[in-house]
Amino acid sequence: MQIFTPVKTSASAFEKYESLINEAIDAVHKREHYTPFPEMPSPADYGEGAESAQKAAFESQLGGKFDRLKQSSDSWLESDEESPYTGKGLKISYPVNSNIESYIAAAKKANEKWKVTDAKTRAGLLVETLQQLKSHFFELAFATMHTTGQSYLMSFQASGPHAADRALESIALGYAELTRFADKISWEKPAGKFNLKLEKFGMNVGRGLALAIGCSTFPTWNTLPGLYASLITGNPVIVKPHPKAIYPIAIVVSVIQDVLKENGFDPNLVQLASDKADNQITKKLAEHAEIKIIDFTGSNSFGSYVEGLPGKVVFTEKAGVNSIIIDSIDDLDAMAKNIAFSISLYSGQMCTAPQNIYVPENGIDLKEGHASLEDVEKAIVDQTRGLVEHPKAGHAVAGAIQSKATMDRVLKAKDIGGKVLLENKAIANPEFPDAQTQSPIIIELAKDKRNLVKGEMFGPIVFIIPTKDTNESLELASKAALEHGAISCSAYTQDESTLQNIATTMADAGTPVSFNLTGGVYVNQNAGFSDFHVSGGNPAGNASFTNPEFVVKRFVRVQSRIFVK
Amino acid sequence: MQIFTPVKTSASAFEKYESLINEAIDAVHKREHYTPFPEMPSPADYGEGAESAQKAAFESQLGGKFDRLKQSSDSWLESDEESPYTGKGLKISYPVNSNIESYIAAAKKANEKWKVTDAKTRAGLLVETLQQLKSHFFELAFATMHTTGQSYLMSFQASGPHAADRALESIALGYAELTRFADKISWEKPAGKFNLKLEKFGMNVGRGLALAIGCSTFPTWNTLPGLYASLITGNPVIVKPHPKAIYPIAIVVSVIQDVLKENGFDPNLVQLASDKADNQITKKLAEHAEIKIIDFTGSNSFGSYVEGLPGKVVFTEKAGVNSIIIDSIDDLDAMAKNIAFSISLYSGQMCTAPQNIYVPENGIDLKEGHASLEDVEKAIVDQTRGLVEHPKAGHAVAGAIQSKATMDRVLKAKDIGGKVLLENKAIANPEFPDAQTQSPIIIELAKDKRNLVKGEMFGPIVFIIPTKDTNESLELASKAALEHGAISCSAYTQDESTLQNIATTMADAGTPVSFNLTGGVYVNQNAGFSDFHVSGGNPAGNASFTNPEFVVKRFVRVQSRIFVK
Repeated sequence: MQIFTPVKTSASAFEKYESLINEAIDAVHKREHYTPFPEMPSPADYGEGAESAQKAAFESQLGGKFDRLKQSSDSWLESDEESPYTGKGLKISYPVNSNIESYIAAAKKANEKWKVTDAKTRAGLLVETLQQLKSHFFELAFATMHTTGQSYLMSFQASGPHAADRALESIALGYAELTRFADKISWEKPAGKFNLKLEKFGMNVGRGLALAIGCSTFPTWNTLPGLYASLITGNPVIVKPHPKAIYPIAIVVSVIQDVLKENGFDPNLVQLASDKADNQITKKLAEHAEIKIIDFTGSNSFGSYVEGLPGKVVFTEKAGVNSIIIDSIDDLDAMAKNIAFSISLYSGQMCTAPQNIYVPENGIDLKEGHASLEDVEKAIVDQTRGLVEHPKAGHAVAGAIQSKATMDRVLKAKDIGGKVLLENKAIANPEFPDAQTQSPIIIELAKDKRNLVKGEMFGPIVFIIPTKDTNESLELASKAALEHGAISCSAYTQDESTLQNIATTMADAGTPVSFNLTGGVYVNQNAGFSDFHVSGGNPAGNASFTNPEFVVKRFVRVQSRIFVK
Repeated sequence: MQIFTPVKTSASAFEKYESLINEAIDAVHKREHYTPFPEMPSPADYGEGAESAQKAAFESQLGGKFDRLKQSSDSWLESDEESPYTGKGLKISYPVNSNIESYIAAAKKANEKWKVTDAKTRAGLLVETLQQLKSHFFELAFATMHTTGQSYLMSFQASGPHAADRALESIALGYAELTRFADKISWEKPAGKFNLKLEKFGMNVGRGLALAIGCSTFPTWNTLPGLYASLITGNPVIVKPHPKAIYPIAIVVSVIQDVLKENGFDPNLVQLASDKADNQITKKLAEHAEIKIIDFTGSNSFGSYVEGLPGKVVFTEKAGVNSIIIDSIDDLDAMAKNIAFSISLYSGQMCTAPQNIYVPENGIDLKEGHASLEDVEKAIVDQTRGLVEHPKAGHAVAGAIQSKATMDRVLKAKDIGGKVLLENKAIANPEFPDAQTQSPIIIELAKDKRNLVKGEMFGPIVFIIPTKDTNESLELASKAALEHGAISCSAYTQDESTLQNIATTMADAGTPVSFNLTGGVYVNQNAGFSDFHVSGGNPAGNASFTNPEFVVKRFVRVQSRIFVK
């Protein structure tokens, strides 16, 4: 009984992608630029005619049943999805189970084989799902655009290649962790005349059923990391999408189910559990005793509820208040242009979008000369106005506002009490005249007005906050991160010790800082394989895409041993 | 501003131990036999005369102030420590702060330098503390013996070399994780005519103040892994020992403080926070907002309380019900002898000690012939009686009973209601006539009596539970592990498919299995660098010595970036 093989091995799928997986593991550790999935929707990369064919597929899906899922179900549910560009309902129906126990039972059954499948097979099959998904990136883009309000280009990038990058990152790091310890060990200990001998065998045991709760703004980018991290580590996943953004993740789930079925696995390993906004099943699923892992992206209040559920392994990305600290710069307009883009991009609906801009009340040093507070404000206001009023760039950058709640928040922002430096207004979109849009409102909050705003104001709402000096700016930015969470921070300084002070102080508040961004890089951007997304070190979330914690908590290592005579 | 060095570097301490650290990292992954700290108290390894000199040090410490700590304090507290061998109080006083805020403030201050100290310096200094600790292993042994009741040899091994092995394991894995990602990254992304460039800098940020809560039976072995894991990842530690077992860990803390001070660090980075049994400060410390990490070893009830504290990173080792599943064996007596040793070792006070022995009611197959249930019971009873009645081996294996509560539990066990197969009784110890001892009681629990015992009966109390067959044995063992937790499991089978079934079923219950132990290896034993101690996969605890989760949750990774024009 020296040989002990508790897991099945089928290396074929792995061999096909072995070099890609190894390359990805290497990239995870090097953290340089690495994009296995090309990020531009170019025919060279994604096929001539793919875009128009998939646009047609998208259009024919509207108003019909999404019948591509292989999962078991007992009824159809027409979703609440509505396009922020047309104002119209998508009227797509998804297969559902009327009793959540059906999802649980199907997931458990599907897991019987998956949990004893070896890491190589799992990794190979999961990479295969991403390769198959490439043939749906354009449909994903249209589905994302018309649920989230993202521009077409952002929809393509975020839901397609960038989400696939993040998924591959989870597979790579998960695979690396599953295989990092020897799993057949000859243990020999000298004991006088003879050696004591044990054969030891390591097993990775998934924690059990996982629930991935999606959000309305990034339905695949935020869901795929946890979904794939749970799968690679041996856990079935029930995907509970946001009721307003089901279509994009439904495409992903259907592709995964196809690959599973084609390879002899139960497609119910990953199930889509859709619901309606007024009858959500999220809490029922989250509180179910069989659910052991929860990934959540969304509001602070629901996130904190999920984090507080006893006996679950929980990963959250909640909201934060992101700051810009302006200390000194060489080129005022280049900075202002960069900031204008950052606050306008997807109308401030990215979790990395800046909200509070701290500027010393006595102004800042330039490379040559000085800029007053008013100069800085004017530069940012002018650049923002210029961008949003640009007939082509305006709507292409800002996209549309996803929800009525965000729309209401923006429309009411002028009454907060600060000094409105730039008013919000609708951005014309020639292609979609009914698009729900609003340009950023920029409000100065003088010292006595600071308390009017606490925490996050989600959407295109920006505050310029005059401070005594950069030390106070940093203190306020750090305090906001520690109290309300922060996912990004941008800072402008020409002084090395100030730079180090900002970097280390914000690091203590769990917040990465982007310094002196002026060209085509924006604080909102967060690259798979290079940037850790959310640190887990402040209230903006306890998870990080993708650090080791994000994968290792999803399984335990159990090592048994046999005495050798 | 390409150069960005938020952490200090002093490589000297690291260089001294670089090869040992690399060897340890390698050993962590290979999981073969590796013992950097020799486990026998031999003069060749630990110095001629070391034992007698340290015995004298121990004796002169009794009744006096433990004045070796370098920490700040405002008063002295005479401890509740009492020797299970003599029944007498140790009457040692330890320096304490009358207000817990003093510990918190001192830890925060000490952390200012430590948190920005680079991983190499930390690793080097921490290994230095273990090297220095070697000169105290004998005193540690006497201190452990006379607080925990462990035998002298176990006291030496568990508190000295084995604890140091586990500490080194934490340092090695922590160091590997802190350094696994590139921390200076040149990120270049092609963008048409030119490349976008960022310089990225990774920082590891400790979560903050750690609290290590010790237990009464293994005051250093169970505390050092978390203590060193917190330190290597950049966090100060307040050690709250069990009020009955302070002296051993006080020695460790004093050595760490010495090394810190000698190297220009604030010794308050690690503080001992002693208290009295009737006035414990554990909850006050655990609930303090500044405490971010908690390591706990002890009871299920307190462990669950700690796990439920919001906003803390918590690692627990609680109690479990460990099983032996007997299916078939080649040599009945060899098995019985092994089991007798396992249940007698330190009088069942190890968290890995077996409690429930499942035997098919129709008996088991031997290599030649068959043994009835009664035969199996008789073999175990006879071997246990033989061991505990052996004039030298008996007390040397069993040691003494640490607490009055355990003593009471054993004395009352005969009234549980099962059939007493072997009665407990005092074990004579010629050197310590007043030693608090009891040999194991072995009770058969017939089917209708099974419900009389739920969960753990800590101490030398063993149940033989007849079952329908091995399938039922496995079912009961798995259920006990899932409901009450389990840290170890022993099984005897000559059938390969039964072996695989037991291994995988118990793995699903988060429990490693030791098969067919007959020679000088016991289920209680758990080797640093080879065995994971506790899986984290059942209620016996959420931590595992030492898996990646045990170190990575103690810090977050924050990666900042500078735009390069």
